[in-house]
Amino acid sequence: MQYPNGKKSSAKHYRPSISQTIYSNRGMTLEEEINDTNHYYLAQQIAIIHKKPTPVQIVHVDYPKRSAAVIKEAYFKQASTTDYNGIYKGKHVDFEAKETKNKQSFPLSNIHMHQIDHMKQIVEHGGICFLLIRFTLYQETYLFPAEHLITHWEQQFTGGRKSIRYETVKKQGYIVPVRYQAKVDYLAVIDQYYMENGGRHHGR
Amino acid sequence: MQYPNGKKSSAKHYRPSISQTIYSNRGMTLEEEINDTNHYYLAQQIAIIHKKPTPVQIVHVDYPKRSAAVIKEAYFKQASTTDYNGIYKGKHVDFEAKETKNKQSFPLSNIHMHQIDHMKQIVEHGGICFLLIRFTLYQETYLFPAEHLITHWEQQFTGGRKSIRYETVKKQGYIVPVRYQAKVDYLAVIDQYYMENGGRHHGR
Repeated sequence: MQYPNGKKSSAKHYRPSISQTIYSNRGMTLEEEINDTNHYYLAQQIAIIHKKPTPVQIVHVDYPKRSAAVIKEAYFKQASTTDYNGIYKGKHVDFEAKETKNKQSFPLSNIHMHQIDHMKQIVEHGGICFLLIRFTLYQETYLFPAEHLITHWEQQFTGGRKSIRYETVKKQGYIVPVRYQAKVDYLAVIDQYYMENGGRHHGR
Repeated sequence: MQYPNGKKSSAKHYRPSISQTIYSNRGMTLEEEINDTNHYYLAQQIAIIHKKPTPVQIVHVDYPKRSAAVIKEAYFKQASTTDYNGIYKGKHVDFEAKETKNKQSFPLSNIHMHQIDHMKQIVEHGGICFLLIRFTLYQETYLFPAEHLITHWEQQFTGGRKSIRYETVKKQGYIVPVRYQAKVDYLAVIDQYYMENGGRHHGR
């Protein structure tokens, strides 16, 4: 496994100790940790990244007198884009985040075709696009470049695997450092792998 | 008034004839026209701009057997960002859109403080940020740069006007051309005023 600083190390070495894990991850989902991280980035004027609201199809709304409108019937809609986007050092950043309890692989069924189409477009237009994958059992989060994700996703229809092996995620992705205020410090990975190569990530 | 091609003209000259108006604007709101335009930009691989879903606070969800989850109680939340963002020619684009039935001015109460804060941040980080203002009575839509909007918005608390005069919108903004497939062709304005000046819009 490679870390953003380029050193090789074992996953075990990087993983926080049990007490740290209990403290820092008490009931926090990947989404909550990313939201905290984005809040920190925003407060520090580092980057402006927001999660998009959950897309909802509103069917019926009540407008009671003297109080706020109440949505009485609505349905969840499938997202046509990724969940997070924004701007970092003048560049458009666009990503999706997923966690899995699997030990061996990340199931591609977590990602919809619309999201893959969207990611392709973002990459073509020069945006920084990726998937954050958390293996909850290992307490590890990887930044997995959209280019690789698109390839794996498409290969599943021509006889390829329906999932990406953990070993492949480690090889083609970059581990995201855990910091006190930026719990999922994905910008550290972007700095290392996207910004130093004229905005194109460094292929492996 | 200045058009994107730099020529001076009267608003009347640019306005579509009554029959065109009836045909092209039959019940279409600014939002619908922008969505159509974005769809066209996307299909033509020109830009990737999406409207963010309406932010909703979900309170209660029913999970009936054998059918989709139903949201039974939810409330509208105030947006903390602008409604539209995406990528164009590698640049981050971020905007809000509002229409007014007023003849003389655009009321600043249409824009929330959170949105102004967000726009300031986008401008500081090098994004292209603006407000699309439609004067429905004139069938005119203007791209109004965030920098000017922020100034007007802040001045209202130090004795300034609570609205931006129509004449000021015409002077500091850029009329957005109406095209058959791009009904609100705001990228034409971006091409003219943002892209030719190293990403900074041309002050007036």
